[in-house]
Amino acid sequence: MKSDTFYMSMLFDFYGELLTDKQKELFDLYYNEDLSLTEIAEHAEISRQGVRDAIVRAETILRDIEDKVGLVKKYSGYENKLIQIREEASYIAKVNSGIRNYEIAKRTESIINTIDELLK
Amino acid sequence: MKSDTFYMSMLFDFYGELLTDKQKELFDLYYNEDLSLTEIAEHAEISRQGVRDAIVRAETILRDIEDKVGLVKKYSGYENKLIQIREEASYIAKVNSGIRNYEIAKRTESIINTIDELLK
Repeated sequence: MKSDTFYMSMLFDFYGELLTDKQKELFDLYYNEDLSLTEIAEHAEISRQGVRDAIVRAETILRDIEDKVGLVKKYSGYENKLIQIREEASYIAKVNSGIRNYEIAKRTESIINTIDELLK
Repeated sequence: MKSDTFYMSMLFDFYGELLTDKQKELFDLYYNEDLSLTEIAEHAEISRQGVRDAIVRAETILRDIEDKVGLVKKYSGYENKLIQIREEASYIAKVNSGIRNYEIAKRTESIINTIDELLK
């Protein structure tokens, strides 16, 4: 039954706190810790079917929220893009260390600082 | 009773789709269209107290979601920061148009393109 693990982890990352504690626990064991339904059932002392139902329910809730608010779609790629911009700005700084243009140095540093703020 | 309008509009922007249609409508009229409770009551044909209760309820829901997931806190400043980075990259491009360093031109263009992708 496992849905796209990466996407599910991302949904969980964004909206997981809107699930109940029990749903969070089971979902986390299944998608982040990669335990099997049977292993989770033993751990949680409920039936395998009970685990399955709870996880499917949690998936549905997370997907429904994303369908409505779309924040994963909007923001999930941000971090990688910011890291990419940071690398490019660092490269400009490196090239500019030969040219020593003050304006370029100042602006490049500012870009890097702003990105570090956003990534922290 | 009006809470911080800017913040409320931001919460609504992020999570508004998780409200009911009625809550959305009343909240929008109050916080985005700036109608009074009395005006909204006339428009919606319910009591002023009914409007007030619905809006307070919607506020509570939006605040509770943000308390749990914190996405407004995390992402609401992104857009302005990205615009700031874009301006700095444009300025580097301008300075570099005198220097004509190919590497700096290439990287600067790439930063601007990446930001335009994120902002669209």
